[in-house]
Amino acid sequence: MRRLRLLTAGESHGPGMTGILEGLPAGLRISTRGVDRDLARRQHGYGSGRRMLIERDRVEWTAGLRFGRTLGSPLAFSILNRDWQNWRDRMSVEAADGARRPKPVTLARPGHADLAGAIKYDTGDIRDVLERASARSTTPRVCAGAVCRQLLANAGVRIWSFVDQLGTIRAFPDAEDPLTEVAPDWWRQDLARPTPLRCPDPDAETAMQAEIDAVSAAGDSIGGSFVVVVEGLPIGLGSSAEWDTRVDSALAGAVMGIQAVKGVEIGLGFGVVSKRGSQVHDEVDSGRSSRWERRTNRAGGVEGGMTNGEPVVVRAAVKPVATLRKPLDAVDLHTGQRGRAHIERSDVAILPRAAIVGEAMVALVLADALLTSFGADTMSDLRAAVRRRRARSVRPRATDGAASE
Amino acid sequence: MRRLRLLTAGESHGPGMTGILEGLPAGLRISTRGVDRDLARRQHGYGSGRRMLIERDRVEWTAGLRFGRTLGSPLAFSILNRDWQNWRDRMSVEAADGARRPKPVTLARPGHADLAGAIKYDTGDIRDVLERASARSTTPRVCAGAVCRQLLANAGVRIWSFVDQLGTIRAFPDAEDPLTEVAPDWWRQDLARPTPLRCPDPDAETAMQAEIDAVSAAGDSIGGSFVVVVEGLPIGLGSSAEWDTRVDSALAGAVMGIQAVKGVEIGLGFGVVSKRGSQVHDEVDSGRSSRWERRTNRAGGVEGGMTNGEPVVVRAAVKPVATLRKPLDAVDLHTGQRGRAHIERSDVAILPRAAIVGEAMVALVLADALLTSFGADTMSDLRAAVRRRRARSVRPRATDGAASE
Amino acid sequence: MRRLRLLTAGESHGPGMTGILEGLPAGLRISTRGVDRDLARRQHGYGSGRRMLIERDRVEWTAGLRFGRTLGSPLAFSILNRDWQNWRDRMSVEAADGARRPKPVTLARPGHADLAGAIKYDTGDIRDVLERASARSTTPRVCAGAVCRQLLANAGVRIWSFVDQLGTIRAFPDAEDPLTEVAPDWWRQDLARPTPLRCPDPDAETAMQAEIDAVSAAGDSIGGSFVVVVEGLPIGLGSSAEWDTRVDSALAGAVMGIQAVKGVEIGLGFGVVSKRGSQVHDEVDSGRSSRWERRTNRAGGVEGGMTNGEPVVVRAAVKPVATLRKPLDAVDLHTGQRGRAHIERSDVAILPRAAIVGEAMVALVLADALLTSFGADTMSDLRAAVRRRRARSVRPRATDGAASE
Amino acid sequence: MRRLRLLTAGESHGPGMTGILEGLPAGLRISTRGVDRDLARRQHGYGSGRRMLIERDRVEWTAGLRFGRTLGSPLAFSILNRDWQNWRDRMSVEAADGARRPKPVTLARPGHADLAGAIKYDTGDIRDVLERASARSTTPRVCAGAVCRQLLANAGVRIWSFVDQLGTIRAFPDAEDPLTEVAPDWWRQDLARPTPLRCPDPDAETAMQAEIDAVSAAGDSIGGSFVVVVEGLPIGLGSSAEWDTRVDSALAGAVMGIQAVKGVEIGLGFGVVSKRGSQVHDEVDSGRSSRWERRTNRAGGVEGGMTNGEPVVVRAAVKPVATLRKPLDAVDLHTGQRGRAHIERSDVAILPRAAIVGEAMVALVLADALLTSFGADTMSDLRAAVRRRRARSVRPRATDGAASE
Repeated sequence: MRRLRLLTAGESHGPGMTGILEGLPAGLRISTRGVDRDLARRQHGYGSGRRMLIERDRVEWTAGLRFGRTLGSPLAFSILNRDWQNWRDRMSVEAADGARRPKPVTLARPGHADLAGAIKYDTGDIRDVLERASARSTTPRVCAGAVCRQLLANAGVRIWSFVDQLGTIRAFPDAEDPLTEVAPDWWRQDLARPTPLRCPDPDAETAMQAEIDAVSAAGDSIGGSFVVVVEGLPIGLGSSAEWDTRVDSALAGAVMGIQAVKGVEIGLGFGVVSKRGSQVHDEVDSGRSSRWERRTNRAGGVEGGMTNGEPVVVRAAVKPVATLRKPLDAVDLHTGQRGRAHIERSDVAILPRAAIVGEAMVALVLADALLTSFGADTMSDLRAAVRRRRARSVRPRATDGAASE
Repeated sequence: MRRLRLLTAGESHGPGMTGILEGLPAGLRISTRGVDRDLARRQHGYGSGRRMLIERDRVEWTAGLRFGRTLGSPLAFSILNRDWQNWRDRMSVEAADGARRPKPVTLARPGHADLAGAIKYDTGDIRDVLERASARSTTPRVCAGAVCRQLLANAGVRIWSFVDQLGTIRAFPDAEDPLTEVAPDWWRQDLARPTPLRCPDPDAETAMQAEIDAVSAAGDSIGGSFVVVVEGLPIGLGSSAEWDTRVDSALAGAVMGIQAVKGVEIGLGFGVVSKRGSQVHDEVDSGRSSRWERRTNRAGGVEGGMTNGEPVVVRAAVKPVATLRKPLDAVDLHTGQRGRAHIERSDVAILPRAAIVGEAMVALVLADALLTSFGADTMSDLRAAVRRRRARSVRPRATDGAASE
Repeated sequence: MRRLRLLTAGESHGPGMTGILEGLPAGLRISTRGVDRDLARRQHGYGSGRRMLIERDRVEWTAGLRFGRTLGSPLAFSILNRDWQNWRDRMSVEAADGARRPKPVTLARPGHADLAGAIKYDTGDIRDVLERASARSTTPRVCAGAVCRQLLANAGVRIWSFVDQLGTIRAFPDAEDPLTEVAPDWWRQDLARPTPLRCPDPDAETAMQAEIDAVSAAGDSIGGSFVVVVEGLPIGLGSSAEWDTRVDSALAGAVMGIQAVKGVEIGLGFGVVSKRGSQVHDEVDSGRSSRWERRTNRAGGVEGGMTNGEPVVVRAAVKPVATLRKPLDAVDLHTGQRGRAHIERSDVAILPRAAIVGEAMVALVLADALLTSFGADTMSDLRAAVRRRRARSVRPRATDGAASE
Repeated sequence: MRRLRLLTAGESHGPGMTGILEGLPAGLRISTRGVDRDLARRQHGYGSGRRMLIERDRVEWTAGLRFGRTLGSPLAFSILNRDWQNWRDRMSVEAADGARRPKPVTLARPGHADLAGAIKYDTGDIRDVLERASARSTTPRVCAGAVCRQLLANAGVRIWSFVDQLGTIRAFPDAEDPLTEVAPDWWRQDLARPTPLRCPDPDAETAMQAEIDAVSAAGDSIGGSFVVVVEGLPIGLGSSAEWDTRVDSALAGAVMGIQAVKGVEIGLGFGVVSKRGSQVHDEVDSGRSSRWERRTNRAGGVEGGMTNGEPVVVRAAVKPVATLRKPLDAVDLHTGQRGRAHIERSDVAILPRAAIVGEAMVALVLADALLTSFGADTMSDLRAAVRRRRARSVRPRATDGAASE
């Protein structure tokens, strides 16, 4: 992240979530409805628990916008935690006179930040840690990502996602390249009326719902994987110039930073392990258009750390939520004894929601890469620079004789 | 990266490779032999091509060290490119009088930075791009990583790696957790006398060598995966506080930034997709030591974006090298016509070498996390701060009754 | 800024001002009253205009605190703009249906961001620029600085300031070193009940008030200089290791970034120009305490880019506010014609308030330097590391024979 | 610094000085002669000591250039320390077998990094500190600045400097605005054949030389001030959007980071203190050209933290060198006793050389601001973006009636 800076804040049961996004060009028209739609998408999904019924997230802009357009100044936004009303005494900001501290949380649960956080921050109350480690902290990331998505749309870029696998159930299990099976209007339909699990294969989705019911009945939880796709990117975002300037590196870092993500792939990803070189790389399709189009997109749109004009395809593995109705053994910070952890939340599957956070992080990284390449104090400057790049990306007309070297 | 800054430079056939690492504490005793050993390890491996026979990399320190100890000033180092002697006319730094530009490289090869880079940087000579995109640029990263490894060793941390899979051949194919099959002294043996493919399963390694021979005979190339393991880390490096402060995020970004890496996992990684929550998380082993030891390490040593005291386990997918002896279709930048690319390099498998770069990137990220948590202008300060943390990480003696909540 | 990150946001007449400060250790007890006091001090001062009567700034914490202590998570805070109620139609965030844009501001005023900002951000309405360029944007900086001041206090560091000169009137005009004339309890009195212009020389202050009255009567404005002093710093914050790691560099950058500041000095500052070397440097006072105390402090507490244990002394020049009651010639963006600018604000002197912002910026920079040297995930870790440093800073007992070399 | 990253390294008597500059566009033609000329200018000046006779600095490029043009990859360069041959045993990088450490430097000299550095880095040998704190560390900064100067020249920007005052002797002492007295071809003459002290007022320069002789005879040293001027900048570099995005802030930080600088001013600088608002701001000159030209340039080319199209004028105060032939009292680290410090270097005045470093730092900051606003992967992209900005900066033809509001 070089041109954009994002800081976010907020405890899960505190007053609210906040973000400041600095570095946007002036003149970007922002649709609040579009941002709220992404927030709603983050709350959607079969297998989610009660909290999602309490919150109805709406972005509130507090700085950086005037008459719906960015000013070039930092964009600030907040999302209220409605649940805060129920938690005021346990999550008081102030050490108010006569306040009695609530009973501390002392049981450290496996799969959470609890134990590492309590030791790092030297606290006897795990609530001091779990409140921020909660996935609710992704809310302002989704806002920032929604803004970046709108910026990218101005440069002709579209971002969408879907659930690819839940437990052992895969979308399009028989397809060689599942992506090619996704209906072309999937993204539009997904925005307007998402399916329960945001899986584009209806048969798989039905099976996934059944699996969630079964897992739920067993008091267990289930993970899966999602895919984020980005179409229309200019060629040459990111750079192979330095160890930390590659766009695949930035994408992997941002997506792995989402709670519960344990793996990230670009294109074939771990699929490259068992393939030979002749099956892995993407030749230019000489018969086609004036673009440098490829016959395949196994690289997932990134070569040499740069976008190559094909869709960027990022896949992430999401672990099952760690809070089970039949809880795992926890351990008491103070006594070292085993115990059964309290249940803070009861999602069975968060996969469709994690995918929306995935979209947001990918949008943030790519907006930053776009602005790093094209500068741009204003949106009109940005559009002019992108047009220049696209003009340079036209392929010379081949007469299809083979070139010699 | 917050406390350390690393910049590297160097073209593959230019005068040499350079790096500056800023932010090290004073008083770190550096073993040049240890750094050279890591450089040699990066050049080792069955399946590597001719270039590795030309270069015998040795680090040369130019700043930041005095009598073998860091001064707290930026550490600068370089590694000569011996091959530069053969390339002076094609890779001249200066626009010397009367110099004739060599014939440009115009065929853009799939799987390389060629096409995206030529468009991004608006050059008609792909050599301007491929020289820096080359994996030789990982040489100074390995130097910096070797220094960080030595810093981490002062804090009781050990980093090692192995090749996990090549093509379809897996190490310890029948093991539930392949890591547990690795001999305890593997790391020591691997440092002293690495096996041809750095695979700790001798049967698998034999099969891998045969596979390389077969792939080589077919004029093809082959990829695989490697695993980096880090033992002895203090609890609480990294943080769940912000979207970009998690140590798993930093690890994924740094490892995905290695040339040819297309996927990164922490712990079970994509293995979490098909498992239920009860099979994924790591309970504290109540019967054990005074550490908060776990019964399993499926999380790969990271919970809530922080180290949890268990070994950090990172796995990466490496694609087959894109330059095949039977080359893929390339395409001419200027004419748009198909052609057969020249062969710059002829490695069949770079997997064992990529794993050494993986070690280096992991070392860099974790040294930065260590210094971010513990500050430290000097090594003695660092050691004192680490001792404080370790003292805080002792588990209270449990009487093994279960705690209630 | 390496360990702390601060983003702020807010337009002068928008809904409010916001800030997020990331990187604080856990366990810092924050006094909201102390922060509000610094906000009130920023609004105080003879010569200020109407706006200061409208606003009564109060910090509102929205994240990062629980029961009055930091959690290690990002600290978020906001300050309402009460004036926003009067500006809702001119400063609407949303492009509400049927909203009519207010008449644009087109006259670009000298001494403001108006002209450069309108061209940079390509806007026809200068309000899009001036709202953020306003000194009201320093409000969240003062909040963040107040938090850093409290952090520094935990390490035994005290920050205070005073007005040194207004127009041609200097405090302690006859003193060789004005700083030595300031009463030892000035800082305490200034916190409790600041004088009208925060000048520690009562005679000068009386003359300054008269000067403000005269300037005001003339429809003009007046500038001056302030001094920030920091006592109790550990030796060795900042570093000469790199071009951008020196603490004097960071201080100068942060203070010059305050609106209206046009010059920054450390210690003697421009006073060094006309002095010889023998009059400029600070010898250790061999007769004194167990500290490495100096006979003088002409260096202003910084040698080699590091704190040297003496008080850090920073002085800044503040230009007269650019909005005069007898306005200067402005020029119309669209027609190029001269005009008389509207008067957005009518302060005659902002000097005492700028000094409070100066304290805040100095506190921010030094808190960052402290955390960079000492790391610290928690306040107890920080205090332990500072104690280590102080123990190392004890001077060996000299028997006052001269050392030979 | 947002788009460019610079790391430098090197001890004063170590093998050499190194720098890596990352973030340059591809296609910048670099004149090595121009860089060497700036290095020579840094070594020039009446009053310099012996070391300058030993070193004849030449840049050596090791990465990032091919046939004299940048590749978009990191630019690496080094400058040998010829003196290193005489210091190999005292400055050995390696802890070679049987090496005997030289006698440590234990006397901490006032005005140097000695004492603070020895405590910070916990060393008993002050050489470990002074080697990096030396002004020789500005050599790679001058290289990087020379490259940035050449980049800026491509955007129509010219940077030059002069000595403004030495001791009590001012250039153009009777002029209201000394800058207006400088001959228009000063910069050209200064590049080709600089005068002994780089002062554009011959009478003053003569007096300055006499003053240096007198100071030298007295065994003392002398400081002064220099001015850096930048002409031709586009309007709108830097930003008032955030506390750390203002270009005056970045300039002040970078210039204060030069060894021996104790004060920085933009435009009138501390001159604003004693002036009224009506005398400080710069009205647009309605009678003039199609540019938004000002009648005066008291702001020094920066309003609201942005360039306003007028020349940027930065002035810096340089303290007398701390190493005097009649040395000040030093103090022994180990015994606490007073002593007379050894004399490492014997410059009497470094002012003309500091001014060259000033040019370099200003060039670095402004190149970064340019690239932040205009992005640019290539020089042609950059030039196109600058042209767009210049086209937007044309002033509408005024008919000179006054605008009404």
